[in-house]
Amino acid sequence: MPVLVMKFGGTSVANLDRIKRAAKRVGVEVAKGYDVIVIVSAMSGKTNELVGWVNETSPLYDAREYDAIVSSGENVTAGLMALTLQEMDVPARSWQGWQVPVKTTSAHSAARIEEILSDNIMAKFAAGDRVAVVAGFQGVSPEGRTTTLGRGGSDTTAVAFAAAFEAERCDIYTDVDGVYTTDPRITDKARKLDKIAFEEMLELASLGAKVLQTRSVELAMRYKVKLRVLSSFEEQSDTAGTLVCAEEEIMESNVVSGIAYSRDEAKMTLVSVADRPGIAAAIFGPLSDAGVNVDMIIQNIAEDGRTDMTFSCPTDQVKRAEKAMEDAKASGEINYHDLIADTDVAKISAVGIGMRSQSGVAAKMFKTLSDEGVNIKVIATSEIKISVLVDRKYMELAVQALHDAFELEKAA
Amino acid sequence: MPVLVMKFGGTSVANLDRIKRAAKRVGVEVAKGYDVIVIVSAMSGKTNELVGWVNETSPLYDAREYDAIVSSGENVTAGLMALTLQEMDVPARSWQGWQVPVKTTSAHSAARIEEILSDNIMAKFAAGDRVAVVAGFQGVSPEGRTTTLGRGGSDTTAVAFAAAFEAERCDIYTDVDGVYTTDPRITDKARKLDKIAFEEMLELASLGAKVLQTRSVELAMRYKVKLRVLSSFEEQSDTAGTLVCAEEEIMESNVVSGIAYSRDEAKMTLVSVADRPGIAAAIFGPLSDAGVNVDMIIQNIAEDGRTDMTFSCPTDQVKRAEKAMEDAKASGEINYHDLIADTDVAKISAVGIGMRSQSGVAAKMFKTLSDEGVNIKVIATSEIKISVLVDRKYMELAVQALHDAFELEKAA
Repeated sequence: MPVLVMKFGGTSVANLDRIKRAAKRVGVEVAKGYDVIVIVSAMSGKTNELVGWVNETSPLYDAREYDAIVSSGENVTAGLMALTLQEMDVPARSWQGWQVPVKTTSAHSAARIEEILSDNIMAKFAAGDRVAVVAGFQGVSPEGRTTTLGRGGSDTTAVAFAAAFEAERCDIYTDVDGVYTTDPRITDKARKLDKIAFEEMLELASLGAKVLQTRSVELAMRYKVKLRVLSSFEEQSDTAGTLVCAEEEIMESNVVSGIAYSRDEAKMTLVSVADRPGIAAAIFGPLSDAGVNVDMIIQNIAEDGRTDMTFSCPTDQVKRAEKAMEDAKASGEINYHDLIADTDVAKISAVGIGMRSQSGVAAKMFKTLSDEGVNIKVIATSEIKISVLVDRKYMELAVQALHDAFELEKAA
Repeated sequence: MPVLVMKFGGTSVANLDRIKRAAKRVGVEVAKGYDVIVIVSAMSGKTNELVGWVNETSPLYDAREYDAIVSSGENVTAGLMALTLQEMDVPARSWQGWQVPVKTTSAHSAARIEEILSDNIMAKFAAGDRVAVVAGFQGVSPEGRTTTLGRGGSDTTAVAFAAAFEAERCDIYTDVDGVYTTDPRITDKARKLDKIAFEEMLELASLGAKVLQTRSVELAMRYKVKLRVLSSFEEQSDTAGTLVCAEEEIMESNVVSGIAYSRDEAKMTLVSVADRPGIAAAIFGPLSDAGVNVDMIIQNIAEDGRTDMTFSCPTDQVKRAEKAMEDAKASGEINYHDLIADTDVAKISAVGIGMRSQSGVAAKMFKTLSDEGVNIKVIATSEIKISVLVDRKYMELAVQALHDAFELEKAA
């Protein structure tokens, strides 16, 4: 029988009533003839409770014990979901990471799935089980200890199972009903997308859209897993939510698919840096060593052998970046007059695979912002994305103006 | 290095502060040179929360899922205890049932330990770990699923580990500071025993003393594990608590070691049963088939071919016993005039290995009760125990009088 993977996040299994509602959705797919693999998160709040205990007990905790403790939340949900399905006369059982097994690396708390053995679950499907309820977010290391994949890892578990079992589709049930052209809280013209390409979803995920974990999208792209994001709180239908799929499956699309934003970016400027060959390496080497994730970089034209170097990084890494630059200056590696941190900025990005074939997107973006009187501080582009830093006070205005300019309220 | 097993019950690990207090006790034993195996229960209240969810989800639950869910409580405590020990610079790690492994039968929710493989933990001790923190109450079935041993099973886990690792002693930390000559709530003359024989402890446990699970005492007796019951809320010392040990290790003891009582016993009388060979089997066969645990049995002298048959059973089995007797009467297997259930009784027992060698204990017990005007309704004896049923209103009086008569307030 064809296999379907259905993943339910923490809010979708927050209590026994919601678990029952989720189980009913599973029952509908079983009735259609699917063998279903259900991936569950911990009941919402449970993981935070467990993490709180770990941090209070041991601030610099042993990640192996963290994993042993925190993974228990998913085990409870998996058992309760299996019992709920059994009550509906759907043959089901729960599976913990070590039982499947889900083999991972030994990188506790941030393990990567290396292999999912499908034999045990397939044998149970062959023997009459219709549902395998798998505790998400966990696996087992080569040393036989329980590992976790990092926060949000249940999305990755779901996609990895879909790949291993060659599932027809991987449905991610969450508390939003799909992927939008932009945040509906910023403009009510935001429109739910029926389809979005893997590459676009990846950019949106890394730009701050919190719908899917980045790694799960990467994995889906690599193994061509059809991913669907949909809400567990809406009516069930075959066309609900947003399908994240390969570009080829999207017949028509707008040049720009979505506008993303992030408040968590700071702009750092090294004023009057002595310009010489190798200066970029001398600056960004120490920043990388200090664990600063530099995003955008801009270098002004040199005058009199000196230049200004601007870069952006997450706001919570500003202190670390300042320390790294001061140390590099003290050791004589670099020389600059001043370091100015501007945390009062926001990053706005336009994303779309259509940019590859159509020119003029950047020009249109800059003109739109200019017409609104929004000054652009830094620009960065990739093949399917244009990002700009602007003053934070203009963030909502910029998102609304760009959404209008690219006519995202209209379907392609 | 010699191995010590230390078991902490739910109230001893109820929160992070108590886990820390328990860990300090472990640290003291490690400093003495022991390799320590710590067995932990779930934080008090957690198991009830999980069991509540299971019952609400599925009243006739699949015991395999019950076990998968309920065992998670012990996993959390084991991880937190390991982290707490690490914070104290004591090398420790947590172990779940499948990791040790603790091999059990497949009788989910009431599994029996078949074998504990010591290799994995011994290898870690050899490599420098000083403490193995084991999640109590759980194991793994031949099918690779998590099992539990039934409520209170962590005591059994502790004794089984002590046997498998040939531990010097098995310390059971609980919320009482030892085994008493009787319940201190009934008489303030109750005295804590320094030592008690396995056989006596077994009788006391099955008579309603809730200090230790009966199975754990049986196991300790079979494998000659020295068991010590002590409080995790009192000062630590080598002589604290009560040592449960082989008879030979107790030099002097009173004839009677303790007085136990139970309110949960009912007296049932079949009035005017037709007396014939095989009548006892015809009565107690159906009761056994109906799952009624008959404790004491008394048969009056037959007159005119008819007799009265009295027996006792737990009060919550009275309805079941009545139904079994009515069915047997309806089918013609037995014949009686009336069945009278008296639930207003209590069972009082005197227990002591000294009874084996000293006569007159029963006579003294009967005379003491008679002097107090307490009427004895049923009597049952074993080699080291005399039990009587009395009207419940006399229960406290009877316990106090017997405690005085056998001078239990004085050490041997």
